[in-house]
Amino acid sequence: MQSTHPDTSDTTAAALATAACGYWHRRGLPTAPGQVVAAPGAPVMLLALLAATGAGGVRGGSGVLLPRPSAAWYAPQARLLGRPLHPVPVPAECGGVPDPFALLETVRRVRAGGGDPRVLLLSVADDPTGTAVPPELLHEVCEAAADEGLLIVSDESWRDTSHDPHDTVIVSPAEMLHSAGTDADWVVVLVGLGAALLPPGLPAGIARFPGTDQGRVLGDAVREVLDTLHTELSHPVAEAAAEALTEPAALREQRAATARTHGAYATALQHAVTEAGALCRPPHAGRQLYADFEPLRSDLAARGIEDAATLEAELVVRLGPFVMGGHRFGDDPHALRVRLSTEVLARGAPTPPEGSGVLDGVRSALTELTATH
Amino acid sequence: MQSTHPDTSDTTAAALATAACGYWHRRGLPTAPGQVVAAPGAPVMLLALLAATGAGGVRGGSGVLLPRPSAAWYAPQARLLGRPLHPVPVPAECGGVPDPFALLETVRRVRAGGGDPRVLLLSVADDPTGTAVPPELLHEVCEAAADEGLLIVSDESWRDTSHDPHDTVIVSPAEMLHSAGTDADWVVVLVGLGAALLPPGLPAGIARFPGTDQGRVLGDAVREVLDTLHTELSHPVAEAAAEALTEPAALREQRAATARTHGAYATALQHAVTEAGALCRPPHAGRQLYADFEPLRSDLAARGIEDAATLEAELVVRLGPFVMGGHRFGDDPHALRVRLSTEVLARGAPTPPEGSGVLDGVRSALTELTATH
Repeated sequence: MQSTHPDTSDTTAAALATAACGYWHRRGLPTAPGQVVAAPGAPVMLLALLAATGAGGVRGGSGVLLPRPSAAWYAPQARLLGRPLHPVPVPAECGGVPDPFALLETVRRVRAGGGDPRVLLLSVADDPTGTAVPPELLHEVCEAAADEGLLIVSDESWRDTSHDPHDTVIVSPAEMLHSAGTDADWVVVLVGLGAALLPPGLPAGIARFPGTDQGRVLGDAVREVLDTLHTELSHPVAEAAAEALTEPAALREQRAATARTHGAYATALQHAVTEAGALCRPPHAGRQLYADFEPLRSDLAARGIEDAATLEAELVVRLGPFVMGGHRFGDDPHALRVRLSTEVLARGAPTPPEGSGVLDGVRSALTELTATH
Repeated sequence: MQSTHPDTSDTTAAALATAACGYWHRRGLPTAPGQVVAAPGAPVMLLALLAATGAGGVRGGSGVLLPRPSAAWYAPQARLLGRPLHPVPVPAECGGVPDPFALLETVRRVRAGGGDPRVLLLSVADDPTGTAVPPELLHEVCEAAADEGLLIVSDESWRDTSHDPHDTVIVSPAEMLHSAGTDADWVVVLVGLGAALLPPGLPAGIARFPGTDQGRVLGDAVREVLDTLHTELSHPVAEAAAEALTEPAALREQRAATARTHGAYATALQHAVTEAGALCRPPHAGRQLYADFEPLRSDLAARGIEDAATLEAELVVRLGPFVMGGHRFGDDPHALRVRLSTEVLARGAPTPPEGSGVLDGVRSALTELTATH
């Protein structure tokens, strides 16, 4: 940290940037090494990004728009910097993006009140909902954001965890706006490698900045904040990340197998939740799904369950620490919504979910909780 | 990051905390594992610490007092959080701490103006000055800080790089205030392991919180901010840090040998600088010294060198990237002061400094720059 010598880890950093270019190239996003920034995790990258986009530099007060619900680690970075948060409801079909009309309405309302929303955070394959945004809907969101001059920060950490990659088309806003013309390319892609590329214990995240002058300026500003925090990747993590981003065959196969397994778990859980009378969007990616118990409000109220926190507590007692209330994802704390982790079924692995005793346990827990008296 | 399972790296984290307790115990600071927090570097730890000490939680506006000059990575963390900075001049005898009277004066002036200074950052073995604070002076500073209710954040990263450990007594404010009574123990010790314990490429820092209720609350708040940033140490770095903190004999010997070498370099550089007519406090620790060329102002002005930035530029041309202007350490940008890194002589290693051609090069560069016409 104190040395003025060029670091021997420069070679590893260069290998990591090159591997990241290959990773994005394979996903239809031509990328040069100068467009790549690495950090020890997506949250620190997001913090640096928000700091770099503040009005008047890093101490800016400009606002951050984000879907409601959204990943639990988004909002705290903005709060840490004292930046105003503007949650926008997600559409009926999926989570991860704001409803385009609600987005425009929110931007106008905030601006009318003297606010200055600048950044839109979204996720193409979503935590907590486990859904993937359909390309046509994403297109509407991107157009709305571009019209309002918003920087889109696209969290694509779960992109590679599609349960059925042949059936689910996941497109990056960067690809979408890139093909629409260079000037519209105001998208930063964020990938936390822990979701699909690196094992736990090796935290790393990468970001791709637009290949425009504006993108270069923003990328440099983010590097400057990360330098300030001295958050260079440790050498062993950088090496592992560089290797993983080349996506060797073994990694691809294991990733696909894991995604299929969690897809089966997610589908089984969705059925169990739906049978119990709750609502749940069909899951497409990742290891989570989002259940809405509002249709069972009166039954649950009879058991003293009237908000997300008490619903979470009751389900945790029955299912273990695989349930988190919607309030943890910025959702209405009074709404009876929870995120379920597919890991709840992994406890019974390798038993297939349909025949698993664990799934039966989930079913009976839900029935017990929601059945009318 | 997404898993709800207990992590296998818990064992490593526990080993690291235990090793840190041993490290501090050997330095007269009894420490329990609950008092220890680890982060991927001292700067992120400082950011979390400042965020956790803000008025009204993490978005507070309370001020940070720090010596002028001080390490280049202190101020940016406060700036990132929008916290006011209050630099206080260092005393004549050493850097790393504010002059005690100037400290009291600054606190009173800031409070009179409606400010709320809460935290005092200091370093017992200092970057940029390379000095160690004498215990009696540190005692005065600690008393002043305690009287004003300031939290002392003591950066002890360079503590273990004493050029001559038998001659230089380095005491922690935590030890000083701990022996004065539990209630006065309002000190957080910060150790960046890169200075003396871990090689480059493995960034890690540890902090020790007071063993009081107040200390526990602060430690928990810091852990919460670090959790928000998801900045857990990567597994390989945590393992290396746990091992290094046990201070095996081989590490101790290598550290002492490195410190002696840089001590010899520092002394040789100090002589060269002094011979050229500049002022320089005798260096005691680390790999840097701080030279004040103000006595040569008129000679330098004749060459167009009238501030720290131009002095830095002229010296970098002659000596390479081993010189940084005082403005980078929060010092008066108009003052002709620079930090010299002893690494400038390591280029000629293993030639002993006195006979080295590199040292001759430094001498002639200084002479060339400062000689009267």
